[in-house]
Amino acid sequence: MREALREHAARRLAAPPRVRCPLDSLDYVFTAGGLAEGVSGFRAYRAGRLAGDQLVAVWDAHGILTGVVVGDELGARRTGALGAVAADVLARQDSRVAAIIGTGHQAWTQLWALRAVRPLREIRVYSRDPRRRDAFAARAATELSLPASSAACAADAVQGADIVVLATNAKTPVLDAADIAPGTHVTTVGPKTRDSHETPLELVGACGLITCDSPEQARDYPGQFFTGSATLVSLADVIAGRVPGRSHDDEITLHCSVGLAGTEVLLADHLLRAHASRAQGLGEVVRR
Amino acid sequence: MREALREHAARRLAAPPRVRCPLDSLDYVFTAGGLAEGVSGFRAYRAGRLAGDQLVAVWDAHGILTGVVVGDELGARRTGALGAVAADVLARQDSRVAAIIGTGHQAWTQLWALRAVRPLREIRVYSRDPRRRDAFAARAATELSLPASSAACAADAVQGADIVVLATNAKTPVLDAADIAPGTHVTTVGPKTRDSHETPLELVGACGLITCDSPEQARDYPGQFFTGSATLVSLADVIAGRVPGRSHDDEITLHCSVGLAGTEVLLADHLLRAHASRAQGLGEVVRR
Repeated sequence: MREALREHAARRLAAPPRVRCPLDSLDYVFTAGGLAEGVSGFRAYRAGRLAGDQLVAVWDAHGILTGVVVGDELGARRTGALGAVAADVLARQDSRVAAIIGTGHQAWTQLWALRAVRPLREIRVYSRDPRRRDAFAARAATELSLPASSAACAADAVQGADIVVLATNAKTPVLDAADIAPGTHVTTVGPKTRDSHETPLELVGACGLITCDSPEQARDYPGQFFTGSATLVSLADVIAGRVPGRSHDDEITLHCSVGLAGTEVLLADHLLRAHASRAQGLGEVVRR
Repeated sequence: MREALREHAARRLAAPPRVRCPLDSLDYVFTAGGLAEGVSGFRAYRAGRLAGDQLVAVWDAHGILTGVVVGDELGARRTGALGAVAADVLARQDSRVAAIIGTGHQAWTQLWALRAVRPLREIRVYSRDPRRRDAFAARAATELSLPASSAACAADAVQGADIVVLATNAKTPVLDAADIAPGTHVTTVGPKTRDSHETPLELVGACGLITCDSPEQARDYPGQFFTGSATLVSLADVIAGRVPGRSHDDEITLHCSVGLAGTEVLLADHLLRAHASRAQGLGEVVRR
């Protein structure tokens, strides 16, 4: 995903707006994307009562369809990896404590990827359902070998945290801006429109830097983006060194995750090539 | 394909206009289609310098992606099968002699399917290149066990033929209308616009019935349809008994093949189910 953002910064990652094909009871939606003169393809998903499986299809530079990936897993891991790149670029180097607000699949993949960029020594988990936050913390300990515990409230979770991940479905802010300490990096994955946002607007005012993996997509959001799109800096431009990143250790940074189009295709290509080099065969179906 | 046309006649086969997503050097084009409350999916192809593989993806009624089919073969067989249904419905019952003008892949799949609807006792093959027509006739004899021979000219091929298939890339008529005997059924697969058509316009005037697998698609043709779209009868309506078919043994009938959208998905579904019942496994990639 870091490489994908570099390609995006260099204007080599094409990601035109999605197209929609209405059928009777559902729509087929297609997001094409890829590298100039290189790998390309699309993600297809169905919007409607029975959405079912997603599909990502990948063509190589010679026009060969090298494979397809079925299911929701790829997209969630992709989003997690983009969030981790943002944290790597924006969080303080000495960040060791992470707070995860939300216990769904998006929260999980954020944490899954985050541990690749910082050696985390403490994870605090909060969601409204005590059983879900306990289960999430237990899973993080078991599957990711992370020292995770559940918190009684969002304020307890974020107090003293270096990195805060918001990954809820909440339409109203899930914490007080005052609970976020100077120097914290925050990523928001959940609702991000003016009318519906998990992040307090006061935090937007307190931030020294607000990034987005695709300010273009944020500008096209149905419903105005909660930060106002003028404030958004392209994460890719920070990575490319075009725009400065964190300016000092007390700055609060905020990353708004929208899921840069075209990145599923690049991740699928990466997986398919890794798989092919192991299996010595292309064209396999990887099912979740 | 007969079943697909029945569903089309009953307005149960959804096939909205294709959508197009422009990337740098090529476009991704998507044709979605399927049955109301049933199987659906799409065909994806790339338009540009390096088009490469096509992809057909199929979802069942429960939202499960049951499989994908890669390559051009499915579309060509689909077109062949639609042509054979037209011949079955429109050609005289006692048709035994077929002329094939053109020796490309579309010509081949027309003949491949045609033998399923009439017991052919003579095949005449013509194209401008003697080697290609000889090779096509030899292949028909070997692979399809058909008594095929190559003709020195189009007139020789169609003289006395009961069924004539035109499947060329010709922009101007490939035969004289006067060479088509009363009672013949003709299918045209190649160019079909006012400015570019393999079928002589005089033949249009001589026909008692002109059908199309999708008059709607013919009306949307880039460039006016060569017959004028007002004359086109829906093949599906003939199959459903809504419109009369051949009225007498001396009538010339003409079928214009445009490739009804959504039919690739139905054919792919049929193949995948047949394959699954053999292999007891879904989600396989069938590569040409």
